[in-house]
Amino acid sequence: MELQNAKGTRDFLPKEKIVRNDIQNALANVFELYGFSPFETPVIERYEILSSKYAGGEEILKESFQFRDQGNRDLGLRYDLTVPLARFIGMNSQMKMPVKLYQMGNVFRDGPISASRYRQFMQCDVDIIGVKTMLAEAELLSLASEAFQRIGIDVEIRFNNRKLLNELLDWCGVKKESHDTVILSVDKLEKFGATEVEKELHGKGISHDAIARIMDVLSMKGIDKIGKLLKKSEGIKEIEELEKFLSILGVNARFDQSLARGLSYYTGTVFEVAARESSVKSTICAGGRYDRMISSLLGRGDYPAVGISFGLDRIHDAVCEKRKIGKKVVSGVYIIPINTAEVCLKILNLLRSSGIHSDMDFSGRGPSKNLDYANSLSIPYVILIGKKELEKEKMTLRDMKTGKEEMLKIDEVIKRLKQSLPEE
Amino acid sequence: MELQNAKGTRDFLPKEKIVRNDIQNALANVFELYGFSPFETPVIERYEILSSKYAGGEEILKESFQFRDQGNRDLGLRYDLTVPLARFIGMNSQMKMPVKLYQMGNVFRDGPISASRYRQFMQCDVDIIGVKTMLAEAELLSLASEAFQRIGIDVEIRFNNRKLLNELLDWCGVKKESHDTVILSVDKLEKFGATEVEKELHGKGISHDAIARIMDVLSMKGIDKIGKLLKKSEGIKEIEELEKFLSILGVNARFDQSLARGLSYYTGTVFEVAARESSVKSTICAGGRYDRMISSLLGRGDYPAVGISFGLDRIHDAVCEKRKIGKKVVSGVYIIPINTAEVCLKILNLLRSSGIHSDMDFSGRGPSKNLDYANSLSIPYVILIGKKELEKEKMTLRDMKTGKEEMLKIDEVIKRLKQSLPEE
Repeated sequence: MELQNAKGTRDFLPKEKIVRNDIQNALANVFELYGFSPFETPVIERYEILSSKYAGGEEILKESFQFRDQGNRDLGLRYDLTVPLARFIGMNSQMKMPVKLYQMGNVFRDGPISASRYRQFMQCDVDIIGVKTMLAEAELLSLASEAFQRIGIDVEIRFNNRKLLNELLDWCGVKKESHDTVILSVDKLEKFGATEVEKELHGKGISHDAIARIMDVLSMKGIDKIGKLLKKSEGIKEIEELEKFLSILGVNARFDQSLARGLSYYTGTVFEVAARESSVKSTICAGGRYDRMISSLLGRGDYPAVGISFGLDRIHDAVCEKRKIGKKVVSGVYIIPINTAEVCLKILNLLRSSGIHSDMDFSGRGPSKNLDYANSLSIPYVILIGKKELEKEKMTLRDMKTGKEEMLKIDEVIKRLKQSLPEE
Repeated sequence: MELQNAKGTRDFLPKEKIVRNDIQNALANVFELYGFSPFETPVIERYEILSSKYAGGEEILKESFQFRDQGNRDLGLRYDLTVPLARFIGMNSQMKMPVKLYQMGNVFRDGPISASRYRQFMQCDVDIIGVKTMLAEAELLSLASEAFQRIGIDVEIRFNNRKLLNELLDWCGVKKESHDTVILSVDKLEKFGATEVEKELHGKGISHDAIARIMDVLSMKGIDKIGKLLKKSEGIKEIEELEKFLSILGVNARFDQSLARGLSYYTGTVFEVAARESSVKSTICAGGRYDRMISSLLGRGDYPAVGISFGLDRIHDAVCEKRKIGKKVVSGVYIIPINTAEVCLKILNLLRSSGIHSDMDFSGRGPSKNLDYANSLSIPYVILIGKKELEKEKMTLRDMKTGKEEMLKIDEVIKRLKQSLPEE
């Protein structure tokens, strides 16, 4: 049998998983600080839900894993967390609006893979359902800013507004029915450059004149200049309102009229977060307002909504790039018994009662093999207990970094370790 | 479109997910206190791995979800966390033995469903690989005892030893080739009673005399009495060693020779944890020693192993039964602006900077609707800020339980909330 992972999936070694858990905990703490409550939906959904025409769309559906249960029911693995959220909202109409929710979970895409594209990856979604004002957008951008500060990634936050984009396309002379496809092309501006996008727009039958105007408008600096082109603009009004709230909250975010976001269900504000000075060039967090998606999917009600999604795998990559030296295991101290297993068990119990992450040799091998082991796992401290130590009712504490050894009583060891080891 | 979950799966509302997270965090904290490091494997595995004859076995394989990716590769959803662990160990031979690992993740079974049987459920597995001594078993039982103490469930821990069971079956005159099937029947003793088990053994062709001896042996009290039946017993030796370590560690666990555990891959100690005085009658945590499984699956090496698995869903049910009043949302305070949204945003920022889980009305609705909302979500405190408050540079803090209101300055509010709200 060949030992390998399913294509496009991967394992996380302890040293990687420790970092992932740190990030997840930091995110959850910020989400809850901001009053978002956790919820959970299953990985498996009925295929009928995933394939609804108001769900993720054709492209994404082609990449979804599909299968049947023994009762021949048509099922699939979820490809995002937004469609399950919509179903959840629909099935829990007792919930008071507005609702502030977050979910962290794996999503699956049976698509082409690359360095930053996996077939199983984790998304952390934060959504406000039931709020029409720009306060909801401001809340999510403030949350993102706080989250990345805590995680320790320097980021650039940009935002735009789909209403404004549509108004600008009107002004450029692009027909309403071409707006969506033009927005899809504009979304590629940063990645592929102006020449490529112009060529693509040309291919889509957009006139020379309109293309020139589009490129012109996209290169303007600042909302004021753009505002002058439009008489009565709802997009401008929303952007100005959002900017006001962001300034009160002290959130650093930049308006960028070339930001489009690919998904078709966005109806207003869109935003994107990228890491500065990182080899992770792709977006690490993004979202926007989708006022019609939930009610279309449910076929009823009015559910204005804004959401933001954190891509855990890419954030993980950006963090690991900076944090070269991490923990390989969780233990702070490793006890080596030299024919003193029973006494050591008691010491182990005492250390753990004091909240110290502690491990001990259970195999009975010699001290030098055990020291090699502790060293290879980068465990910061080792305790040795042999005959000599037993007689003195002390133990030898070895600092594995400096190699310094001291004979200490248990109280002294606990005090020392609690001072030196980071709080868990 | 019908809004429903895939059969056998379920959502968790915030009030349920908050409890689940509490339990998961408590478990992870204890696992790390005991020096177990986290790791992660994907939900999707190659079917070849899942269906290996040394993996979960026929019965479990029949219940596994199977599908193909676009490259026509045969895949499946994992049905447990032990088979992925074995693959992980095999693919990471650089890891120093012994290895102490834990994984929390969803597993899937396409089988019959009932009140405590789901098609997606979460397991939390803790394993020690590379240790042959009973210190490993003692470590896991100590960990389980500590974990349930922290979670607040009163439990009974029982253990037995497969070697002893085999020795006893020899003594009863049961042929070697019938041991496994007899053990499967014995495993049902507690659930179905003696008469049923005797009938089943009869049906399996076990002699009258052997059945009488089996039932006799199983009803004996204490290891000493049983020890007298056997001359040189490895099972007894291991049990006595384990009992010695458990007594040093202060772990309360009871030897029970009728405990069998269904799985065929166990080679020594087996154990089971049940909640006392709970409506959750099924096992909430179980495991044992499986010294041959990993090396058989990998076709190489020597990987003695002991593992324990916590069933999060059943533990959750047992906890919820006790903790009737829980949080519905995470917020400790809800700010109601009365035409003072911008000032309230600043207050919101200050509260959050102080670490208080805070929310605010973003919809601009009136105070009485907002009070109803906060009340229905059981948010403990509300802050009201209107014209009167603005003039005095104060705010009204309302205790939602007592209805008592006070006009306070921001510093006073922060101090009060930090005292009254539980530490997060």
